Amino acid sequence: MTTTESQQIRLSSYPEGMPTHDDFETVAVELPDPGEGEVLLRTIYLSLDPYMRGRMSTAKSYAAPLELGDVVVGQTVCEVVASASDRRSVGDIVLAYTGWQTHAVVDARHTRRLDPADAPISTALGVLGMPGFTAYAGLLEIGRPQPGETVVVAAAAGPVGSAVGQIARIKGARAVGIAGGPEKCELLRRFGFDAAIDHRSPSFADDLAAATPDGVDVYFENVGGPVAAAVVKRLNKFARIPVCGLVADYNATAAPTGIDRLPGFMRRVLSSSLTVRGFIQDEFRPTHEAAFHEEMPRWVRDGAVQYVEDVVDGLENAIDAFQGLLTGKNLGKLLVRVGEVPTT
Amino acid sequence: MTTTESQQIRLSSYPEGMPTHDDFETVAVELPDPGEGEVLLRTIYLSLDPYMRGRMSTAKSYAAPLELGDVVVGQTVCEVVASASDRRSVGDIVLAYTGWQTHAVVDARHTRRLDPADAPISTALGVLGMPGFTAYAGLLEIGRPQPGETVVVAAAAGPVGSAVGQIARIKGARAVGIAGGPEKCELLRRFGFDAAIDHRSPSFADDLAAATPDGVDVYFENVGGPVAAAVVKRLNKFARIPVCGLVADYNATAAPTGIDRLPGFMRRVLSSSLTVRGFIQDEFRPTHEAAFHEEMPRWVRDGAVQYVEDVVDGLENAIDAFQGLLTGKNLGKLLVRVGEVPTT
Repeated sequence: MTTTESQQIRLSSYPEGMPTHDDFETVAVELPDPGEGEVLLRTIYLSLDPYMRGRMSTAKSYAAPLELGDVVVGQTVCEVVASASDRRSVGDIVLAYTGWQTHAVVDARHTRRLDPADAPISTALGVLGMPGFTAYAGLLEIGRPQPGETVVVAAAAGPVGSAVGQIARIKGARAVGIAGGPEKCELLRRFGFDAAIDHRSPSFADDLAAATPDGVDVYFENVGGPVAAAVVKRLNKFARIPVCGLVADYNATAAPTGIDRLPGFMRRVLSSSLTVRGFIQDEFRPTHEAAFHEEMPRWVRDGAVQYVEDVVDGLENAIDAFQGLLTGKNLGKLLVRVGEVPTT
Repeated sequence: MTTTESQQIRLSSYPEGMPTHDDFETVAVELPDPGEGEVLLRTIYLSLDPYMRGRMSTAKSYAAPLELGDVVVGQTVCEVVASASDRRSVGDIVLAYTGWQTHAVVDARHTRRLDPADAPISTALGVLGMPGFTAYAGLLEIGRPQPGETVVVAAAAGPVGSAVGQIARIKGARAVGIAGGPEKCELLRRFGFDAAIDHRSPSFADDLAAATPDGVDVYFENVGGPVAAAVVKRLNKFARIPVCGLVADYNATAAPTGIDRLPGFMRRVLSSSLTVRGFIQDEFRPTHEAAFHEEMPRWVRDGAVQYVEDVVDGLENAIDAFQGLLTGKNLGKLLVRVGEVPTT
């Protein structure tokens, strides 16, 4: 048989602060033929997500860190190019977790078949995939928005945030999105958010107050930092804070000094009977995945949930794109198109 | 009719830090006769509780602050000495909210009749009253201890903490109490806690680790400060933190400087899928009060929940006793015996 070469991006050092090209190495490896039960995959789309920064650190997190020399992790949409499994056929499009590489050999059971007739295959990495599910489960299970309540979400132009706001509206709540810059705010208005606020504006705090005249009942937290501090001031009694991510802090190299805000925050938790709940979407798969796969595709087809994708061409541009993700440069779900998209 | 004089302790200035005698004034007022529907009460027991410190501050809290000149608030057990209501008779023992004074005239509907045959009347201010209910509802509704889990509570020798640990054991969990000094720790062992740890010991952190070999699943927070910081390090994934009080911070006059611990705490909330939930016991009255009044007296009669009271004689000693409460000097539920206890 012909051997297949895979281009891989591996972690070569744990980044201090923002990851740089020096923290990665690109290598080419010869892949073996798929063994019994395995498939050879060609990567079409690689998803870039903020959680990856956590894997590049040895700090305690919800998942083990990458070892130096590991291929950087990531969810992918791939085409099966060789199969030694009766579960998958050559030409199948699958969801896999093969990371930052052009090809991989994996156990066929670690793939999920996608039907390109159902939805564009890239959506399995975004609105119909992990980010969409994160929004759906975290908002509905922890946030529990009620009709007439106000839901605030930051990074609202991202794939999680934009779904949070749109699902909040489906549930009858008022959706206020926070994003960086006028282009993202315009996108939020197009998505039907009741208000869109630019956190880079000097009038941010006033704009937030004006957009939340009845206070805030749900703050879907995926940012942290000064944006979170401003929203916390607006929280109502019994407000809920699903804590999904803290991207503003992901590159922090040391605990910030100055005022210790923890005692004040805890006093606020007490005085306003707040619920603060960290979560990783996996937790809710058993309870919410079936409903998600039933409701979310319908909402997307109906136009109740819209999305945009930001597609970067070529695996060699993944590092630059990932840096941009951590500084909010992308508009919508960030994907790397690693290989040709099949015509269907 | 004869007029009745009430000795009252009123707030004369908002304390900076620890309240002092200068923040209060003692005055004698002539009370009117009870009007239609009212009763004249003679205070027997006054309850002293940490929440009162919050009422002596204009900082945002869950209840409006006292105005300067107001009688300091507090729950009391009183005897009805005159009645213009068909709801209450002279000689009735009632639970009321008449505060730091020897007598008061109140609407009879704002009293609850106690039956001295059921339990010592002082317990209506402690294990069978608000502190006991706080422990019961906060632990069971937010903490949700499961058999085999580890529950940690600080201020464990206090009326809330001691009930938390003992209810945790009833539910099959392991109870670890934190308290200040060997006398309190000895009390916790007598109450059946699985471990009692002295936070004043230089080996506190090591002792805590040794007492929680499987980590901590529920941390019932009523202290804050360095004790809380040590427990947070031991929290397991999916741990629950009912936030009931933060007595270590109640006298803080400014936000502490140094390291800002909030970002690190939020990262921990995220990485361990923690639930942090502030609460005031009132919230759970509609859902849990009936069960509390059914279960708790039974547990007390059975000896499954034990309690101690720390009784200070004379309203004139309330200020000193309250200072002692804020620094942990009392052992068990702190009460002021304001007037003679009727013999039954």
